Amino acid sequence: MNETYAKLKTRLAVAFDLGAIGRRGIPGLLFWDQQTMMPPGGTRVRAEQLATLSRVANDFFVSSETERLLEEVRPYEESLDYESDEASLIRVARQDFEKASRVPADLRADMSRASSHGLEAWTRAKASSDFETFLPALERNIELRHRYIECFDPADEPYDILLDDFERGMKTAQVRTIFERLKEEQVPLIAEIGERDDPSLDAVVNGDYPVDAQRAICHEVVELFGYRPGTWRLDPTVHPFASGPSIDDIRITTHYAEGNLASLFATMHEYGHGIYEHGVDPAYERTPLGGGVSLGLHESQSRMWENLVGRSLPFWRFFYPRLQAAFPSQLASVDVETFYRAANRVHPSLIRIHADEATYNLHIILRFELEQDIFNGRVELRELPEIWNARMHEYLGVDVPDNAHGVLQDMHWGGGHIGYFSTYALGNVISLQIWERVLSDITDLHEQFERGEFEALKEWLRDRLHRHGRKFTPAETLEKVVGGPIDAGPYLRYLREKHGAAAAV
Amino acid sequence: MNETYAKLKTRLAVAFDLGAIGRRGIPGLLFWDQQTMMPPGGTRVRAEQLATLSRVANDFFVSSETERLLEEVRPYEESLDYESDEASLIRVARQDFEKASRVPADLRADMSRASSHGLEAWTRAKASSDFETFLPALERNIELRHRYIECFDPADEPYDILLDDFERGMKTAQVRTIFERLKEEQVPLIAEIGERDDPSLDAVVNGDYPVDAQRAICHEVVELFGYRPGTWRLDPTVHPFASGPSIDDIRITTHYAEGNLASLFATMHEYGHGIYEHGVDPAYERTPLGGGVSLGLHESQSRMWENLVGRSLPFWRFFYPRLQAAFPSQLASVDVETFYRAANRVHPSLIRIHADEATYNLHIILRFELEQDIFNGRVELRELPEIWNARMHEYLGVDVPDNAHGVLQDMHWGGGHIGYFSTYALGNVISLQIWERVLSDITDLHEQFERGEFEALKEWLRDRLHRHGRKFTPAETLEKVVGGPIDAGPYLRYLREKHGAAAAV
Repeated sequence: MNETYAKLKTRLAVAFDLGAIGRRGIPGLLFWDQQTMMPPGGTRVRAEQLATLSRVANDFFVSSETERLLEEVRPYEESLDYESDEASLIRVARQDFEKASRVPADLRADMSRASSHGLEAWTRAKASSDFETFLPALERNIELRHRYIECFDPADEPYDILLDDFERGMKTAQVRTIFERLKEEQVPLIAEIGERDDPSLDAVVNGDYPVDAQRAICHEVVELFGYRPGTWRLDPTVHPFASGPSIDDIRITTHYAEGNLASLFATMHEYGHGIYEHGVDPAYERTPLGGGVSLGLHESQSRMWENLVGRSLPFWRFFYPRLQAAFPSQLASVDVETFYRAANRVHPSLIRIHADEATYNLHIILRFELEQDIFNGRVELRELPEIWNARMHEYLGVDVPDNAHGVLQDMHWGGGHIGYFSTYALGNVISLQIWERVLSDITDLHEQFERGEFEALKEWLRDRLHRHGRKFTPAETLEKVVGGPIDAGPYLRYLREKHGAAAAV
Repeated sequence: MNETYAKLKTRLAVAFDLGAIGRRGIPGLLFWDQQTMMPPGGTRVRAEQLATLSRVANDFFVSSETERLLEEVRPYEESLDYESDEASLIRVARQDFEKASRVPADLRADMSRASSHGLEAWTRAKASSDFETFLPALERNIELRHRYIECFDPADEPYDILLDDFERGMKTAQVRTIFERLKEEQVPLIAEIGERDDPSLDAVVNGDYPVDAQRAICHEVVELFGYRPGTWRLDPTVHPFASGPSIDDIRITTHYAEGNLASLFATMHEYGHGIYEHGVDPAYERTPLGGGVSLGLHESQSRMWENLVGRSLPFWRFFYPRLQAAFPSQLASVDVETFYRAANRVHPSLIRIHADEATYNLHIILRFELEQDIFNGRVELRELPEIWNARMHEYLGVDVPDNAHGVLQDMHWGGGHIGYFSTYALGNVISLQIWERVLSDITDLHEQFERGEFEALKEWLRDRLHRHGRKFTPAETLEKVVGGPIDAGPYLRYLREKHGAAAAV
């Protein structure tokens, strides 16, 4: 092995251990611990510990020594095949380095502080439903994002630079084209579904579901989907997320609420994130190639296990008797088709995180459009609540009663994460592109689900997608899996077939 | 505030966050996570993460920048009162720095590797009871400790340098004097107790105790002793320990075994460690003054809550009805005096960690003497099993059946921790010095225990001992609490009164 390459790899491993680079979109051990295990008394010092780790890791990575090694390794890099692990590691490290070294330490510190303050202000504002309380923090976050954008060479659109942090290489114009098409088809489709809505289905998934039985059934589904024993855990938390301290140490979380079965679908969702991280080539552990390649690709995996597997009739034909056994008094008199329809009920609502698979994207498109308007100076920040409410009516036909259920519902803007939302809808779109490929390769997939078998799907995903980690760009990765660029077609076909006028169980 | 001092403090806080310095004798978050939560799949990468953190923290602390700040701050230090927090922080940081900077990075790395290999060899050797398997690793550890000793100025005895890592400032000669006195009195005392032993008591604490009820009663005792809600947790593990990621985030562990009530006494023991860390002045958080001052003082606190509180008759007069309620079928027909005698049965045995309070020290003294002989070249390492077995017979009258129950029982030598064992017995001795003071200040202490009140004891300990953290040396700290140096008198008085011929319930 090339000596400079070996030195570079060792240096990157240290930066990786310190938690700085690479694992985009999936939190580390300290976050997991804070959300699941830490006594509340630890909060203040934990914030200091996190800040220290991130600062030390950044200083270590964005250093003249890293720069020197990246320069020195160039002849070796050029002698290698583009697709070799070595060339890829150097290439991705170089991209990470070039991006990270553009941002002065002062600005990074300002952004980090503003993010903490913003989240704190958002928490207060949401509690009182008062947008004015949040406005100064939002202004500060936006101002700092403008300064952040100025650190980079001009892009086609300034927003491209923000988007790139979450979906490397994706352009705002591409997202706009996809979202326009989604909106065009989804708005009328949702109106059409609404005419056939059966609100009585609500009582099936919302009812008295004891938490202990939920916990058991959530563990059962994770084992069924195929986590290897000794490589994962599932814990309760307030807001579900997945964390991966290492490839064979995957930790997912879910939220158990007495009144509904949402924990089960949240578990499947986080399983999808977790199994992506677990499927990365073990050779990429502690390198910049570790972890999922982008938030969009990550979300395609969580959405796939939640919606395409977990809300499918074949899955429920196998799993429903187990669910009935866990909740006999609640479900004994409900048949599997009724449960399936309840789990798939489309119903426009106020809150993004509770939205069904057909209305979800419109929540995202609204946020993407507002972020565009903000960065292009087309709206005043103080007008946001009004515009939010008008668009919610236009796209989903719902009336927002207050800002806590409207513009203040998400924490992202408080934390300064502008450009993040789009990746959720991109994930939905990509999940169906991949799914069409899966179905054409595994022709008896639904029969397998009906027998409770998920191994073939899991292996297909690992082999085609997961193992690559961050080796290729998101676009290259998608190209390898589906043979082309991002395309809304499969997703819209799926929605029409499942929920359109012709759909029937 | 002096500017250099502020810079130094910030730098030390970073080193502290990275987990290097200060918290002697109490493990950090990554260790806690590994022992309680981590899926086994995470083991390999966790070792890398721990090595990285320790290396980066050490490099950061033992740096020319720290050295420069420590020089520059000297005039300010000299202008301050010895007992001021600022002077103490600089003084302790300087001592830590001088000690850490003596050891070359290569030797540190060699010791760390040898420790890993040694623990691995020890695990295999213990499983097969074969000392020969362990011998090369032990030889390597001893050789590296000799090299370590050579890094420092000559001490009265080379062993002083090893001891200093666990009990700053303590001399081998002092320990020897104390241990000689303990041995002289404890060996005949134990023989005397043995003549009055009632083996039938064994059946009281060893029986069918379901783990769920043990868990509930362990949580109850921790709450009773007085951890503040939201600042601690208690989890199961294989080998009990206490961890403190921060002052208000204390995590203790215990081991639940179906067949006995040892979990309860282990919980009280770890409570003692945890409440010491929790009682340190919050101003010392993230500074070299944080954490307990030495292993001996730490052990004095764990032993106090386990033995002086948790095995006392006044405590059981209050708590026994609760224990009976938790285990009605096991304990309904056992009266409190019988239970008290069972919990205090003195019975020489093979294994240190299962030893009762009267025989425990002899296990330690044996190890201390062997470590002396090893470092003074008076024994060949391969003779250790034979010598071990002979001394076990001499001190405790027991015959060692195999090395797994003899010289191979403890992991310490495998990990290279030579000089550590003494602190356990020093802790026993110190616990009684402090206890005599407590009893003379809180004259109705036993009446308080009988009412289930432990607040006065906890506050006394916090005010006299815990809050000081590492501000003073262990000897200065002890002087402040008990008004004199370490002294075996109170401990021997206690043993005679509790277990001697005149003792009666």
